[in-house]
Amino acid sequence: MLIVMEKGATDDQVKAVTERIRLLGFRPHPIPGAERLAIGITGNHAPIDPAEFDLLPGVQEAIRVTRPYKLVSREVKAGDSVIEVGGVPIGGRRIVLIAGPCAVESEAQAMAIAEKVAAAGADLFRGGAFKPRTSPYAFQGLGLPALKILAKVRERFGLPVVTEAVDEESMAQVEEYADAAQIGARNMQNFSLLKRAGRARIPIFLKRGMSATLEEFLMAAEYIVSEGNYKVFLCERGVRTFADHTRNTLDLAIVPAVKSLSHLPILVDPSHGTGRRDKVLPLTRAAIAVGADGVMVEVHHDPSKALSDGPQAILPEMFETLAREVAAVAALVGRSHG
Amino acid sequence: MLIVMEKGATDDQVKAVTERIRLLGFRPHPIPGAERLAIGITGNHAPIDPAEFDLLPGVQEAIRVTRPYKLVSREVKAGDSVIEVGGVPIGGRRIVLIAGPCAVESEAQAMAIAEKVAAAGADLFRGGAFKPRTSPYAFQGLGLPALKILAKVRERFGLPVVTEAVDEESMAQVEEYADAAQIGARNMQNFSLLKRAGRARIPIFLKRGMSATLEEFLMAAEYIVSEGNYKVFLCERGVRTFADHTRNTLDLAIVPAVKSLSHLPILVDPSHGTGRRDKVLPLTRAAIAVGADGVMVEVHHDPSKALSDGPQAILPEMFETLAREVAAVAALVGRSHG
Amino acid sequence: MLIVMEKGATDDQVKAVTERIRLLGFRPHPIPGAERLAIGITGNHAPIDPAEFDLLPGVQEAIRVTRPYKLVSREVKAGDSVIEVGGVPIGGRRIVLIAGPCAVESEAQAMAIAEKVAAAGADLFRGGAFKPRTSPYAFQGLGLPALKILAKVRERFGLPVVTEAVDEESMAQVEEYADAAQIGARNMQNFSLLKRAGRARIPIFLKRGMSATLEEFLMAAEYIVSEGNYKVFLCERGVRTFADHTRNTLDLAIVPAVKSLSHLPILVDPSHGTGRRDKVLPLTRAAIAVGADGVMVEVHHDPSKALSDGPQAILPEMFETLAREVAAVAALVGRSHG
Amino acid sequence: MLIVMEKGATDDQVKAVTERIRLLGFRPHPIPGAERLAIGITGNHAPIDPAEFDLLPGVQEAIRVTRPYKLVSREVKAGDSVIEVGGVPIGGRRIVLIAGPCAVESEAQAMAIAEKVAAAGADLFRGGAFKPRTSPYAFQGLGLPALKILAKVRERFGLPVVTEAVDEESMAQVEEYADAAQIGARNMQNFSLLKRAGRARIPIFLKRGMSATLEEFLMAAEYIVSEGNYKVFLCERGVRTFADHTRNTLDLAIVPAVKSLSHLPILVDPSHGTGRRDKVLPLTRAAIAVGADGVMVEVHHDPSKALSDGPQAILPEMFETLAREVAAVAALVGRSHG
Repeated sequence: MLIVMEKGATDDQVKAVTERIRLLGFRPHPIPGAERLAIGITGNHAPIDPAEFDLLPGVQEAIRVTRPYKLVSREVKAGDSVIEVGGVPIGGRRIVLIAGPCAVESEAQAMAIAEKVAAAGADLFRGGAFKPRTSPYAFQGLGLPALKILAKVRERFGLPVVTEAVDEESMAQVEEYADAAQIGARNMQNFSLLKRAGRARIPIFLKRGMSATLEEFLMAAEYIVSEGNYKVFLCERGVRTFADHTRNTLDLAIVPAVKSLSHLPILVDPSHGTGRRDKVLPLTRAAIAVGADGVMVEVHHDPSKALSDGPQAILPEMFETLAREVAAVAALVGRSHG
Repeated sequence: MLIVMEKGATDDQVKAVTERIRLLGFRPHPIPGAERLAIGITGNHAPIDPAEFDLLPGVQEAIRVTRPYKLVSREVKAGDSVIEVGGVPIGGRRIVLIAGPCAVESEAQAMAIAEKVAAAGADLFRGGAFKPRTSPYAFQGLGLPALKILAKVRERFGLPVVTEAVDEESMAQVEEYADAAQIGARNMQNFSLLKRAGRARIPIFLKRGMSATLEEFLMAAEYIVSEGNYKVFLCERGVRTFADHTRNTLDLAIVPAVKSLSHLPILVDPSHGTGRRDKVLPLTRAAIAVGADGVMVEVHHDPSKALSDGPQAILPEMFETLAREVAAVAALVGRSHG
Repeated sequence: MLIVMEKGATDDQVKAVTERIRLLGFRPHPIPGAERLAIGITGNHAPIDPAEFDLLPGVQEAIRVTRPYKLVSREVKAGDSVIEVGGVPIGGRRIVLIAGPCAVESEAQAMAIAEKVAAAGADLFRGGAFKPRTSPYAFQGLGLPALKILAKVRERFGLPVVTEAVDEESMAQVEEYADAAQIGARNMQNFSLLKRAGRARIPIFLKRGMSATLEEFLMAAEYIVSEGNYKVFLCERGVRTFADHTRNTLDLAIVPAVKSLSHLPILVDPSHGTGRRDKVLPLTRAAIAVGADGVMVEVHHDPSKALSDGPQAILPEMFETLAREVAAVAALVGRSHG
Repeated sequence: MLIVMEKGATDDQVKAVTERIRLLGFRPHPIPGAERLAIGITGNHAPIDPAEFDLLPGVQEAIRVTRPYKLVSREVKAGDSVIEVGGVPIGGRRIVLIAGPCAVESEAQAMAIAEKVAAAGADLFRGGAFKPRTSPYAFQGLGLPALKILAKVRERFGLPVVTEAVDEESMAQVEEYADAAQIGARNMQNFSLLKRAGRARIPIFLKRGMSATLEEFLMAAEYIVSEGNYKVFLCERGVRTFADHTRNTLDLAIVPAVKSLSHLPILVDPSHGTGRRDKVLPLTRAAIAVGADGVMVEVHHDPSKALSDGPQAILPEMFETLAREVAAVAALVGRSHG
């Protein structure tokens, strides 16, 4: 159920509606729109009678939401959501580039890469502090020290930072040091983590699971939003198929599919999406051309020595080319960069 | 690296080896075998020189383990592991039947179903207390009260109980009330949860992820074992493919594949593996015929009113037939039930 | 549309109905049942008015067929079809074993293998004369000479033979020399070949395509049957997925799925379904346990020298074990062998 | 094996080499390059001794080809192949747009659509005469009359035409009336048809199979080329996965993957690749951005009345927009259109 308020509805009228919602045992979610405020309702296990709200002062109409995902759907909010991450808007006219190493390996490494990508036009810095790895014996990230390095990167280069949280404990630390927390593909249906992300003070960067359908992807976002954190942006990073010429199969068609159903921004990760350095640039161009709000790419100044995912990291000079190409393609689709 | 002790090695000799391992900064994992003890080593990031151990008293030989998974591999332990869950051995000659509702809905429901499945020959009772659901608005399980109901089921019918844990908090509760903790398909690569499971006092029932390869599956088990909990048993529950005649595609060939590479027991879940009641019996027969150590099936006395997964639950009388068929097929493959 | 005749309908009454069907521009397909004859109608592009037939003498009722596949559906024929191949019934109570080499390599090779599998209880002999190979430079089969060898195998050992046809020309030759023609997975939607198979004088053994849905599979069978060849039996041979522990992922759940929708027999090919010798026996047991009407397996007396698919061929002595195990599992599901 | 001739090698020297190849029982394939001629060798079942050719006059070097596909690989021809279809070059600097209805339904329909797409900048016209359909009861195309309509379209609008052939008979007719013959996804491993295409007088447009790997795709092209028809251009049209938001999952990463391994042109079909009208434009932009040599799209002036695949056909006015966008993206990647 969605309560659409009249254009000039007063704060008191809004308050009366949210109180009525709580009184019924449900949860109100005020959703500001370009012209009017709407209030989403969650927590009901059966349809609500619109008559409960229709006659309240300031209420324009009460609408049933037909999609299984509610708060993230276009039904509830027609306009695009713009998520601010450390002052950088994601989902607006401007394309966003997130760049950095797979993992933070040392302060020297992070700074060296950050300097290059900042100069080339990166908007946010990425770098893993907590790495989910297939093997328990593989490098699992530096943890807290890496977060502190990321904070220094932000200080020195003015780049907001995004980094992955893998559980409640790391989420609390990421909240403290970073500007946005990533939830990785393997945790897309770790519902406890999603709920915790829904109570985080920072935006959440949610990556699609390796075999997630569009509906499951949006439902995972709904988990976060339903807990009260409306600052969610999505990422396509490839799905698992029989195809063996890339590490994953990048499913670019999900970008316009998400755009038509949801108001949330969606980026593309061509590094994980292909797993191969020489495919990152062409797929980045394709991602912007298809309508993505940005890309996240792994950059390393010495990929052969990277502690994880070296073969998919691009070199800093390739990132410069990438930034130029992104700006050019962005212009064609009514967007901009740089 | 695996240190194989001589047949008559003394406790002191074993202790000397484990101390040497710790002194080198690694972790020893004593693995009892039919004839001799072996000691697995984890924590090394590079190959270890066998000479470090070869000449210690009681050491027969030091062997390099070639698989990426170590402690769960047949290289480290040639014989089958038998895991005891509340006194019921899993992985031995006897086939194991785990049965019960998808979710514990009430004491009356759990007791009604438990009575039926106990009478028909179930070895363990299952029932979800914490349900990972695609939608945040779907029934998420009763939580702690459900665990208390499960404990009563055990008391009344003498059936050990297995139930899913979805995070650290629920794992602590499951540890307290249940005989084994399940980690579900969506959490198969929730590495924080796997590590926590590795410190649990009870056996872990690990289900294959929806798009997990064999190696990833065994690596997830390795995460648990490497933390010190050697009591792990696996479950094939279907993978996600294009095929739409069943909810998932049950990949029975992974049973002999796991058996040839790992000493861990593996069961099959034909309820989730097909998502359709009328496929549960034929796929159960096939699972036992292919060599599985047991099956887990969802049973509900009134599936049309089940709060989750009703279409895949079988009726108690179908479970009786299932138990009879399992006994018959088991006899053909040198196993038994009932 | 299906016209069900009354129990004692006369030949003249049947003839009158088929003539009326032809007069309307459609095609009649008489389908004998246990108790009464039914007449399927194809060729109509819109629903037919039952009134066209309801009042004709001998007509019991005119039923609309709701499935997209008509003639192969259980709606049109409730009982199981039994297809005779060289005198061997497929789809009846008795399980069928088809065995032989991937490709006929020489008369000596074919005879050596045939002698072994005949002795061990094979019902039909297989051997490729025309091999669809991924590479144009790989061995493509001996062609006509292989068919002549197959005919000699039948003569000497009394085993009917089944072999693949890959185009119209090879279909004509297979028709002349073999007892059934196989259409392989790669040609499952080669509709011209399917139509030609529908005009063949011999039964057609149709394998599921590598990424065919259940509906597409039955539709491919419908192509054959709609042309007038009602002697079709199916084969599950694994689908293509991300899983890499076997060559294909054997989808055994399609066996009961086909059985519930169609009256056609369905076999399983665990050789192609797994691609690995050590998986053939367990998956054969599983196939019979799940309800398949038989299996087709590749047997070679010297797999290391096989010109194609050596790694999946079992040895003659393994086939003996297989035949014993098939007989044992068959007994459990109300079937028999040997 | 590849024999690279010296820069100024004479015709007689080339002839001597090809004769030597034939004398050895193999087949020579002269491959003109920008600077020098190379001669591919097929038909050998084992490596050839380079010494057989090294000392022949005019021979620069004899190189072993390491890929399983030979003639289509970059090893054999480093430069891009440009295929002429009715005078339109495919694979050169200029992007190619192929447009038209799924099926030719009538002369009026074909002419109406052709007029629109010709005006908007289409380079080639497409329209199915022989339609491979899942159901034997679905519209299968007009056949020969459709080919005659296509010939009229070419005459009136000057657009070369490409249309699908599904067997030997239709290939002969397509050869007579069209400028290029398409082999569809379902026939990508119909090896008899591929060999026949290798003897066709016209270029072949080969679509990727629904579950074909990159290697299988290039091997299918090799089948055609090895028979002597070097005029082959490829098409990515989506693969089959679990994802259900589009009809197929368009795998754009295969475009740069093909480009790095093969000299053949590759186009993209976003109509079949997505199955949804509203996804065609964004995926067309992405296809050009990723490096495709063109796109093939289905256009219908009245999609709701289309006899096949209406939901994926775009309207003529959408095609105008598409052509403008293609020109803009093409310019960014050093290509052009219009």
